[in-house]
Amino acid sequence: MSDLNDALGRVFRELRERRGVSQEALALECELHRTYVGQIERGLKSPTVRTLFVIAKGLGVAPSEILRRVEKEL
Amino acid sequence: MSDLNDALGRVFRELRERRGVSQEALALECELHRTYVGQIERGLKSPTVRTLFVIAKGLGVAPSEILRRVEKEL
Repeated sequence: MSDLNDALGRVFRELRERRGVSQEALALECELHRTYVGQIERGLKSPTVRTLFVIAKGLGVAPSEILRRVEKEL
Repeated sequence: MSDLNDALGRVFRELRERRGVSQEALALECELHRTYVGQIERGLKSPTVRTLFVIAKGLGVAPSEILRRVEKEL
């Protein structure tokens, strides 16, 4: 299941880069630590569903849409 | 955001009951503790995305579909 964290991290990074915001800016908007955002993007952390909702809001994407993309990668 | 855990718990419970399985049976299938499944259904625990995927598999529903239902409740 570390495949899951990897896929989730890739999807987060892709959406963030598409939006043209840095990890720092996203972290600030989400009130998360920049290091934590970086760890999630690298698949090193397993975020809670709550954190998924927070980041999804920061990215302007529905949480369900993020998981739809993750499912395609698994 | 405890609304989120409440909504997630309600969706899990509804899908489990629709499937006609007990918390015990679902917990066994998911290799989770029955108490933990009960706490999630009551909105007392904030599961990780990984746990969401594990329970979704046990329920035979896509994780993205679970979040789609949660989003409608928020």
